[in-house]
Amino acid sequence: MALYLTVLGSSSATPSLNRHPSAFLLRSDRMRSLMLIDCGEGTQIQLRRYGICMQKISHIFISHLHGDHFFGLVGFLLSQSLLGRKNTLHVYAHSPLKKILKMILDVDKTVLQYPLEFHTIKSGTHVLLEDDKIQVKAFPLMHSLPTHGFLFKEKGYPYLIKKSFLETHDISKQWVERIKNGEAYVDECGKSYPLEEIAEKENNLRSFAYCSDTAYYPELVRKVKNVNMLYHEATFMADLENAANDKKHSTTIQAANIAKAAKADNLLIGHFSARYKDIRPLQEEAQTVFPRTLIALEGVTFKI
Amino acid sequence: MALYLTVLGSSSATPSLNRHPSAFLLRSDRMRSLMLIDCGEGTQIQLRRYGICMQKISHIFISHLHGDHFFGLVGFLLSQSLLGRKNTLHVYAHSPLKKILKMILDVDKTVLQYPLEFHTIKSGTHVLLEDDKIQVKAFPLMHSLPTHGFLFKEKGYPYLIKKSFLETHDISKQWVERIKNGEAYVDECGKSYPLEEIAEKENNLRSFAYCSDTAYYPELVRKVKNVNMLYHEATFMADLENAANDKKHSTTIQAANIAKAAKADNLLIGHFSARYKDIRPLQEEAQTVFPRTLIALEGVTFKI
Repeated sequence: MALYLTVLGSSSATPSLNRHPSAFLLRSDRMRSLMLIDCGEGTQIQLRRYGICMQKISHIFISHLHGDHFFGLVGFLLSQSLLGRKNTLHVYAHSPLKKILKMILDVDKTVLQYPLEFHTIKSGTHVLLEDDKIQVKAFPLMHSLPTHGFLFKEKGYPYLIKKSFLETHDISKQWVERIKNGEAYVDECGKSYPLEEIAEKENNLRSFAYCSDTAYYPELVRKVKNVNMLYHEATFMADLENAANDKKHSTTIQAANIAKAAKADNLLIGHFSARYKDIRPLQEEAQTVFPRTLIALEGVTFKI
Repeated sequence: MALYLTVLGSSSATPSLNRHPSAFLLRSDRMRSLMLIDCGEGTQIQLRRYGICMQKISHIFISHLHGDHFFGLVGFLLSQSLLGRKNTLHVYAHSPLKKILKMILDVDKTVLQYPLEFHTIKSGTHVLLEDDKIQVKAFPLMHSLPTHGFLFKEKGYPYLIKKSFLETHDISKQWVERIKNGEAYVDECGKSYPLEEIAEKENNLRSFAYCSDTAYYPELVRKVKNVNMLYHEATFMADLENAANDKKHSTTIQAANIAKAAKADNLLIGHFSARYKDIRPLQEEAQTVFPRTLIALEGVTFKI
């Protein structure tokens, strides 16, 4: 199993020619549909640019209601309607967005031609979505508006049956299910097969945590403990820590400290201030604390 | 004198990778500041792409409240605030936009750091802006929402003083003003100079009419009579006239017929449906009726 994260927008509030406002696409091997995380202005054009089928997006998660995280949403919703979408779209966001959407659609005199389900993100930590394939949890960040991070965890059976065993034994569907859930197999003749001989622990279910926008917030560490990839905003370099504190954003070093304390496999930084034309120094600075720091380059897909 | 029109967005409602939602920049030799006409999603990035100084934009005219004509506005307003704008920005639009702006800025908890003056476009034809340099008039189009076109007319003195006369006579500022307004000059010795000898009629004041979105609407002809350039939407080719009628849009031929009847110097067509990958056939079709048809290519500046 794997998760794949495509960067669509890596800019902070004022976009530049090469950096768009926040938007990320997440795909899981376990899901047919796609998930969009934040939807800054121009996201629908970025999706086109990178050849992503927009109708496959089933869930959109909006971290907070600063414009650079949602100004592309209404355009996306309207275009989907014009393009003939019929399948349900789930939007997860803080409650005022529902009123904004309603007002704009009313003025536009548009009735979307597909079901739109709005799910309110509440305060505190809570599960937004859970099925047999994925769990998505929201947890609070520290910013100037109510803001949540999201933790995506692939779900699956605790055990994988060994291929060699499947090839040499004719196992019923029911038994496949029972073994994957950790039961030793007993065949028709009463012969017992210890679990460790016929199956191995599934340790390839992946997790991704998204934290944008936030001030340095050590509370985060326990929320994102041991994730395979942590996206943490790094609007500023360390010399602008005071500006970061004032604006409730983070520096490269602060992001790296969170990743280190959380024992993340990898850290991805983004939400870069427009003042940085060259963003490699931000990566290099974060790497002094957390060497496995990657940088959000638009159009790049990271396998998690 | 001249007007310069830069195309920032030539798409109809669903943008494509190479065509953005409606936005146009108008500059007059007579004005220091710039005017933006419509502001679809991504306009601020298009302005950057074509190297336009956003702080110089003093007036924004929004034709109607379909998303593809204003979803870039709030992002533009917020970015201007973050970038330190101090000078007043005038926005002309239909009244619901004021409520939408207020709601979004309230949710965003943003107080713009510069004065924003909202001017309501009313029903019928009326002057939106008039000073000694330009007049801007709104006139109704025929669309599925209240929609207005805009007529921009440069203003100036009725006469230009001949260079040769200025070089050989020492004329006071007051007399320059009086001659430009059509008065014959009398020098200190009482010698009279007939107007036609010292000045010529100013016939270089330019006009531009913007008509998007609209069904075929012959009433328009008298509103845009004799303009130097008419922008008229041409969402569809002539074979889709029924679709155009249904959606209250126009075809190439309909746009060309308006330009021909209005005796416009030039016609510029745009707002192309995403179904047309190659837009040259739209130009060729319009040219069968109105040979001086130009096509809205993004990034191109037309001297009017």
